[in-house]
Amino acid sequence: MPVKWMPLLLLLLQMTCCFRSGNCGKVLVWPMEYSHWLNLKIILDELAQRGHEVTVLRPSASIFLDPQKSPDLKFESFPTSLSKDDLDEAFRWFVNTWINEIPRDSCLSYSPLLQNVFEIYSDSYLSLCKDTVSNKQLMTKLQKSKFDVLFSDAIAPCGELTTLAETIGKAEMWLIRSYWDLEFPRPTLPNVDYVGGLHCKPAKPLPKEMEDFVQSSGEHGVVVFSLGSMVSNMTEEKANAIAWALAQIPQKVLWRFDGKTPDTLGPNTRIFKWLPQNDLLGHPKTKAFVTHGGANGIYEAIHFGIPMIGIPLFGEQHDNIAYMVAKGAAVALNFRTITRSDLLNALEAVIENPSYKENAMWLSTIHNDQPMKPLDRAIFWIEFVMRHKGAKHLRPLAYNLTWYQYYSLDVIGFLLAWVAVITFLVIKSCLFIYQKFVKTGKKMKNE
Amino acid sequence: MPVKWMPLLLLLLQMTCCFRSGNCGKVLVWPMEYSHWLNLKIILDELAQRGHEVTVLRPSASIFLDPQKSPDLKFESFPTSLSKDDLDEAFRWFVNTWINEIPRDSCLSYSPLLQNVFEIYSDSYLSLCKDTVSNKQLMTKLQKSKFDVLFSDAIAPCGELTTLAETIGKAEMWLIRSYWDLEFPRPTLPNVDYVGGLHCKPAKPLPKEMEDFVQSSGEHGVVVFSLGSMVSNMTEEKANAIAWALAQIPQKVLWRFDGKTPDTLGPNTRIFKWLPQNDLLGHPKTKAFVTHGGANGIYEAIHFGIPMIGIPLFGEQHDNIAYMVAKGAAVALNFRTITRSDLLNALEAVIENPSYKENAMWLSTIHNDQPMKPLDRAIFWIEFVMRHKGAKHLRPLAYNLTWYQYYSLDVIGFLLAWVAVITFLVIKSCLFIYQKFVKTGKKMKNE
Repeated sequence: MPVKWMPLLLLLLQMTCCFRSGNCGKVLVWPMEYSHWLNLKIILDELAQRGHEVTVLRPSASIFLDPQKSPDLKFESFPTSLSKDDLDEAFRWFVNTWINEIPRDSCLSYSPLLQNVFEIYSDSYLSLCKDTVSNKQLMTKLQKSKFDVLFSDAIAPCGELTTLAETIGKAEMWLIRSYWDLEFPRPTLPNVDYVGGLHCKPAKPLPKEMEDFVQSSGEHGVVVFSLGSMVSNMTEEKANAIAWALAQIPQKVLWRFDGKTPDTLGPNTRIFKWLPQNDLLGHPKTKAFVTHGGANGIYEAIHFGIPMIGIPLFGEQHDNIAYMVAKGAAVALNFRTITRSDLLNALEAVIENPSYKENAMWLSTIHNDQPMKPLDRAIFWIEFVMRHKGAKHLRPLAYNLTWYQYYSLDVIGFLLAWVAVITFLVIKSCLFIYQKFVKTGKKMKNE
Repeated sequence: MPVKWMPLLLLLLQMTCCFRSGNCGKVLVWPMEYSHWLNLKIILDELAQRGHEVTVLRPSASIFLDPQKSPDLKFESFPTSLSKDDLDEAFRWFVNTWINEIPRDSCLSYSPLLQNVFEIYSDSYLSLCKDTVSNKQLMTKLQKSKFDVLFSDAIAPCGELTTLAETIGKAEMWLIRSYWDLEFPRPTLPNVDYVGGLHCKPAKPLPKEMEDFVQSSGEHGVVVFSLGSMVSNMTEEKANAIAWALAQIPQKVLWRFDGKTPDTLGPNTRIFKWLPQNDLLGHPKTKAFVTHGGANGIYEAIHFGIPMIGIPLFGEQHDNIAYMVAKGAAVALNFRTITRSDLLNALEAVIENPSYKENAMWLSTIHNDQPMKPLDRAIFWIEFVMRHKGAKHLRPLAYNLTWYQYYSLDVIGFLLAWVAVITFLVIKSCLFIYQKFVKTGKKMKNE
């Protein structure tokens, strides 16, 4: 069945539904910066297109939230004590420290540096959070607006406010940016939907100059290389090693890089400050994708069935690449220790060994052959929560229990108290009987 | 959004898909009798309509599987040692014993009678099973047919062959005939989809005579009463108590009953041997549904938002009614002890207290407001398994482990063995050192 086409029709049906049914709602958004915002924006634009009123809370320190680039969304800006530069610096320090200085095994073992990094990151966001909730004018305005739903990116502390378990319990619906093409199957609750890859779209034509460069690769095709938007400080030595390896392969290479042009750059490699990544990965000439393993890029590669070389940097990127390696669609390299021969061997393996392409194509099949497109499912559940003021029937009642009820400590305590009382009574009775009869008996005998 | 209408369009899209994409498959079905067959047939008819070749294994003892009523399905009949009467008798004895003689708490405590009942039921089905697999001609024919998928009703032992855990592990996909409108949310694996109510359809017009009777109820409306297809032996006393209670209410009553007409039958009550249950429950005059709590009837009531009086008899009916009571959409009565005032009070409560109707309407809303219709999801996953020869990406890898691997006994055993070896060596070394130095030292001292 051509499942790919099915949701297009659904989309047409649903586009007008909110107007027709009078179910247009008001959505308040607590967003996040960088790639998280790019992903969230896909959902917000879709909601706005369907007729919902979408209001995004925008701290004045915001780096990525540009009202001019999102004409369909309303932005509720408010002043913050941090400046844009402060926040950008905090983010970059957080990421760069994690990439270059945290011990490799720190996810499993305790690392004081990792804790420090998280505390400073968390403090920056907490400051934005305080600026929001202590802004009485803003709070009054928001309360008067009577929103139907709060849609929050839960990675930032302010998106959650109080503990993790409480937050999970409070949300009506969780939309998770992955699916079983990326992760391994595990039990999950009915109020969790896996909508990974919701941003993937059919590839658009490339700019003419880029298309000419790609076509010039002939039968060898091209390699797309990008370590995302957060990495700017690669050492010259590392950049040279990478450029050297790229120069050895017969493919043409499009490399997203904004450092000093490496001396070893080959004639087959072109450097770009930005790449139309989705369109490139959907190009029939693309043979492999060198990626840091961010979820957006990974899903574009899965969507189009492109094998990967993963160079994970921080966050869940290590997990993402480990999944892709386990599923036979990627080779993993270590960013800190990478040598030119590591990269060259990995490129040759991924491009020449057909199993990587076959496995990537299978992931693409799984991804595209779902009962309903991820974006449509995400929109459905946000609209559902608005329509019905929640989705209580999907939330386990365990969320309503306190921690001691959850672990049955109240029941265990009650039973233990009874055991203690009965034991006490039995011992007391035995002692009483012993004293009354045995001792009295002895006494009488002695008398 | 008018979700109810969305799937109609989907259906049109998908109706032709199997022909267009050349993905028409061959489906082999291991069915079950009575209401299970009625429910399964909805999926099979839909598969056949979409162009798949559906072959149903039909024992000659089959009671409900009538090839003439299913012209779109192929039936592969085979002789069995049991006759149709034998099987029917075994079923009825099984059900009647459970309804009338098993202690009420036997689901929680051990009951020799319940075990006996299950053993006799299981033996009947095992005999059908043996007749199937030992029929060499049939087996050769089936093997040569190269089916794409086996679709089995797993309630009958032969649908499973070997243990429960193994069976769950073997199936690529499980379609469960319930949803969170009926059950309470709990964790579930990605290869399980909840498709309860897949048989519900918009109500068709009633036969003229029945419609006239329903309309004659005026503003009071009607009550629909049915204890399903398996109950025929109600005592005269019980039938009289029921008829008396029904005679007291201002509603008209349609009662599915094929015993002797009770003396106390009121003029407002009409007895029918069969009722168009879905069409009646979808009739705007219907106020309440008296049901044994079979999943098909419960789902028709949920679909149309009709409050219920549950008189559960056997199997999961007790659970179903308990769920409906917990969700405020039903009152439960005990079939063994039911009195006329019990029924009258329950009828008055369910019809006059608006909370029952409100709760039933909320369940109807949940049921009808899903991202995709249950029948379409069921068909999607069967077609998925055919298209891709499985759905391995949804199956947890734990299924591939042996029981001792699952419980990590091999790891624990290995570690314990090492602890034992090291303990042994340490003790031996200590003893050796003691003998060598301490004893020798003493000896020398003594000398």
